[in-house]
Amino acid sequence: MWEMDNQLTNELKKKYRIVFHDLNLLEQAFTHSSYVNEHRNLQLSDNERLEFLGDAVLELMVSEYLYRLYPSIPEGKLTKTRAAIVREDSLSKFAKECGFDKYIMLGKGEENSGGRNRPALLCDLFEAFLGALYLDQGFKAAHAFLQTVVFPKVKAGAFSHEMDHKTKLQEVLQKSGDVVIEYRLVKEEGPAHERVFWIEVYVDDKLIGTGQGKSKKLAEQAAAENALAAL
Amino acid sequence: MWEMDNQLTNELKKKYRIVFHDLNLLEQAFTHSSYVNEHRNLQLSDNERLEFLGDAVLELMVSEYLYRLYPSIPEGKLTKTRAAIVREDSLSKFAKECGFDKYIMLGKGEENSGGRNRPALLCDLFEAFLGALYLDQGFKAAHAFLQTVVFPKVKAGAFSHEMDHKTKLQEVLQKSGDVVIEYRLVKEEGPAHERVFWIEVYVDDKLIGTGQGKSKKLAEQAAAENALAAL
Repeated sequence: MWEMDNQLTNELKKKYRIVFHDLNLLEQAFTHSSYVNEHRNLQLSDNERLEFLGDAVLELMVSEYLYRLYPSIPEGKLTKTRAAIVREDSLSKFAKECGFDKYIMLGKGEENSGGRNRPALLCDLFEAFLGALYLDQGFKAAHAFLQTVVFPKVKAGAFSHEMDHKTKLQEVLQKSGDVVIEYRLVKEEGPAHERVFWIEVYVDDKLIGTGQGKSKKLAEQAAAENALAAL
Repeated sequence: MWEMDNQLTNELKKKYRIVFHDLNLLEQAFTHSSYVNEHRNLQLSDNERLEFLGDAVLELMVSEYLYRLYPSIPEGKLTKTRAAIVREDSLSKFAKECGFDKYIMLGKGEENSGGRNRPALLCDLFEAFLGALYLDQGFKAAHAFLQTVVFPKVKAGAFSHEMDHKTKLQEVLQKSGDVVIEYRLVKEEGPAHERVFWIEVYVDDKLIGTGQGKSKKLAEQAAAENALAAL
């Protein structure tokens, strides 16, 4: 048992109503390999196996959440959005928001070189915690934790800059049922190397936005962006 | 509804006791994008979103299975073994064993170019089926399917060639509790460019194998392999 046990368990209980049955799992999630290496006599286990498991727990839960949140966007966009959520940068921020950085046990070298703030380490910590929670209390408890910490940000669109304007427009318009969205090229002019394209976007034959750009693709994006702004 | 419905549903019921509530999900899992593209008037959905979800279902279930099956091997080996299980080549074989290749709906071009036997397509199909099963019947049903189709092969070691002999030896010996495994260099001879190393491996100070090789690492692997053979 470490001295931080009480603080961490209190914080988990207060903020997330989480009470671990097996405190060893919780401790293992917060034990970095550098700490194990410096305390070989204690025969500790580091958090890497839990991170292996937690990574997969996160992947499934985020995938299912996106699958249901965006019922009509194609697989490619789902994959990109998921990648934005589970990447190191995002997960390390979640770990900090949960205050987990205060409790990770580090070796002295790692501590002195700033390991406590290192994104890769915090990302692994977040996944290891999720893995430990999943083992200790099952699927639903791990899901409830993500429901509190991660999903509200996903829903608020914090990661949907990974989606382009056309995709977002489609998503917004199809929420209330199937519609036909059409991009029509209405004009192009200028010499080949400086060509400009004008696109109009229609939903069920009603004009909802226009845009221009140096390629058809860019003009379509601009039209979708304008349509979104006008909705 | 397609003409193959009956055969497929019968086979799933007979072989795996699986009966889908939502047949649309099952159909979608077996609908390749090439078929959708050739039948735009039918407004079908292809299996790519289900594959996105099923991939994550598989990842978690295989991860958890390995985590529990090998309680003492390090994260790096777990990751390698998981990769061997979920790779295209392996999953396409599982899809064939399940007979899924017979039922996938393909466009004519895809069919004529041999798509029905293409590993990438079969791998996606297997994942899409798992995603559909997970949505239709939940975690336990998807897990039970893998318990029948995938895990017995994992347990029989079909993917553990990804594990080296030292890892396997450690795994076998630690099944019955913690032991100390030690590799001792007992001899080395020959000129620098043709040096040969002799290693003995001990478990709790008892000699259980010897090996030789052109590096210490190779000699250790040989010693572990011999120890495994002798166990």
